[in-house]
Amino acid sequence: MKQHIISALVENHAGMLSRISGLFSRRAFNIDSLTVGETEDSTISRMTIAVTGDDAIIEQIIKQIEKLVDVIVVRKLDPASCMRREIMLMKIGADVKTRPAIIELAGIFRARIIDVSAHTITLEATGNTEKLNGLLFILSPYGILELARTGLVSLERGDKIMSIEAEEEDKT
Amino acid sequence: MKQHIISALVENHAGMLSRISGLFSRRAFNIDSLTVGETEDSTISRMTIAVTGDDAIIEQIIKQIEKLVDVIVVRKLDPASCMRREIMLMKIGADVKTRPAIIELAGIFRARIIDVSAHTITLEATGNTEKLNGLLFILSPYGILELARTGLVSLERGDKIMSIEAEEEDKT
Repeated sequence: MKQHIISALVENHAGMLSRISGLFSRRAFNIDSLTVGETEDSTISRMTIAVTGDDAIIEQIIKQIEKLVDVIVVRKLDPASCMRREIMLMKIGADVKTRPAIIELAGIFRARIIDVSAHTITLEATGNTEKLNGLLFILSPYGILELARTGLVSLERGDKIMSIEAEEEDKT
Repeated sequence: MKQHIISALVENHAGMLSRISGLFSRRAFNIDSLTVGETEDSTISRMTIAVTGDDAIIEQIIKQIEKLVDVIVVRKLDPASCMRREIMLMKIGADVKTRPAIIELAGIFRARIIDVSAHTITLEATGNTEKLNGLLFILSPYGILELARTGLVSLERGDKIMSIEAEEEDKT
């Protein structure tokens, strides 16, 4: 089963999130990651949902999301033509002996060092899921003490735009 | 009213998200941003919720989240002692004339250029909410065509760790 990325623009109302996440949980579909954040218009939020599952059921869920009153646009993004990014903060066990090796690996993955303490080092890394999993794998021998990932956000490449205006033009 | 950051470790089950987001929407509390992603243990997700509202009600909601069966730990993070990061992808209108200015501004904010087309340029920027709002403000005259933000993830600074093991030690 492959991972699908669903991107939706929704009115920024209390309750939207629980209605949309309810559509997945009612089918016992587990969401891999979900992000909701503001867009260029503060009354509108963009929701990005990464979910692994059967194609036909995903299409069904998308159709039901479309029907919700406060949903403006919803699309399944094509992994081949979209940019996917997430951010990962990781706190790693580090002492005088292991610190240089961790800093060197961080550099290779272009991760930024955002905190250092006597026994830990905290990195900020961005990229697609595969890149971040690679960094995680290579650093795991040092001891991952704490990890926070945002989940994916995604935009289509080039001139393609998913926005309210673009959607209205499509309809006319 | 100030923004609160709530961080929770939860069992990775379908339905957790809609139950937790339901606690907010029942009180007509709008969530500023929410992220759910995997942690160092793939059966456990970390949920980070940024919400603006009354202190007393937030405390109430946190107590109710604590009572949910699949919630392992939940904490309100202190903004003064935690690192907050989000990632923003922004597609900006750009042509031969305006492109150099946009690239220069991106450099100042340490944003990475991840796509360039004839009429657009797409940036990836990371930072706390204030920094990203600053970048957004400075680039808005060029035309923000599309914007996707993950919402915040947050870890406490230094040696403090919020994890299952640390929580179990606290209890003993």
